[in-house]
Amino acid sequence: MGSVVMHNVVSVDGFIADADDEVGPLFEWYGNGDVEIGAGCTVSKTSAAYVQPMWADLGVLVIGRHLFDLTNGWEGSPPAGEHVVVVSHRPRPEGWHPEASYFFVDDVARAVAKAGELAGDRTVGVAAGDVGGQALALGLVDEVAMDVVPVVFGSGKRYFGPVDSQHLLEDPHVVVQGDRVLHLRYKVRR
Amino acid sequence: MGSVVMHNVVSVDGFIADADDEVGPLFEWYGNGDVEIGAGCTVSKTSAAYVQPMWADLGVLVIGRHLFDLTNGWEGSPPAGEHVVVVSHRPRPEGWHPEASYFFVDDVARAVAKAGELAGDRTVGVAAGDVGGQALALGLVDEVAMDVVPVVFGSGKRYFGPVDSQHLLEDPHVVVQGDRVLHLRYKVRR
Repeated sequence: MGSVVMHNVVSVDGFIADADDEVGPLFEWYGNGDVEIGAGCTVSKTSAAYVQPMWADLGVLVIGRHLFDLTNGWEGSPPAGEHVVVVSHRPRPEGWHPEASYFFVDDVARAVAKAGELAGDRTVGVAAGDVGGQALALGLVDEVAMDVVPVVFGSGKRYFGPVDSQHLLEDPHVVVQGDRVLHLRYKVRR
Repeated sequence: MGSVVMHNVVSVDGFIADADDEVGPLFEWYGNGDVEIGAGCTVSKTSAAYVQPMWADLGVLVIGRHLFDLTNGWEGSPPAGEHVVVVSHRPRPEGWHPEASYFFVDDVARAVAKAGELAGDRTVGVAAGDVGGQALALGLVDEVAMDVVPVVFGSGKRYFGPVDSQHLLEDPHVVVQGDRVLHLRYKVRR
């Protein structure tokens, strides 16, 4: 099984959106460069060199129902990878994009396991926030990838969601400074 | 007047201590190297090269009463700089180190102004947390210095304290990877 990477863009104080789910300046770097990387994003050369291989390696995304509802599941086309596992107590909406390889699982641990089966030796991406935080607390996350944007949010939705105890990480093995974003990636210490 | 730099060691999720003021792994890098930099700290060569000139340039520290009480004001010897301004509604403790150049001011804005007078063209360091967060919200902070330690805290005392609105920073002009710490420094966008 490939590694499980928790990921999101994040403010310097650890928020992935404000209380109303607005991302504001957090997504500026997705549009401030010349290199098209898909999903409508044009980023700097530096960011592209980091993001493109990461996206290419992603086989499956694990997301929460909240993100699914916000995006309507990207209309059945995941921004990266071929499969999506949605952590939700509610089933797949009736009639929603029957062709899409989306799975609805009511438990984070089983969702990550399902994603691992689907991914084979490719990477499982877990959305930071409530789902990612639960997965980290359960010991299911191998790496933490933070695209840190130079803005203080003050309040909002937390990158680490409901995590409420300490978890050691290794020193970052990726430190890449883009334009309005600092890409950091840490292995979780076992 | 020199610049006003908000500073502290911080977890990847933005905490400077747990709810009981324990810093745990946040201070490990202060003792894991070979270079003595004063205040009982021995850090890696990489961290020393960053920290030493910063400390040397600090003229005055602005701290909260909580930190003063926790450390008993470092017994009158500030860890950096020659003067300390304590933000507090309570006066200087009677008989406490009469020789020490410590000033007690009951308002953050006036404390930073007092520190600026004392500092001349040297740097004013403002402790992150409640005092630093208030100073940032008031527009009194020029730079934000974060020594980011690879640990998730989950909860505790926030680096940005009571800040509850968005503040843009510039891209970091310092990105230095030490051993169990990533030194970042951002100018506040005006």
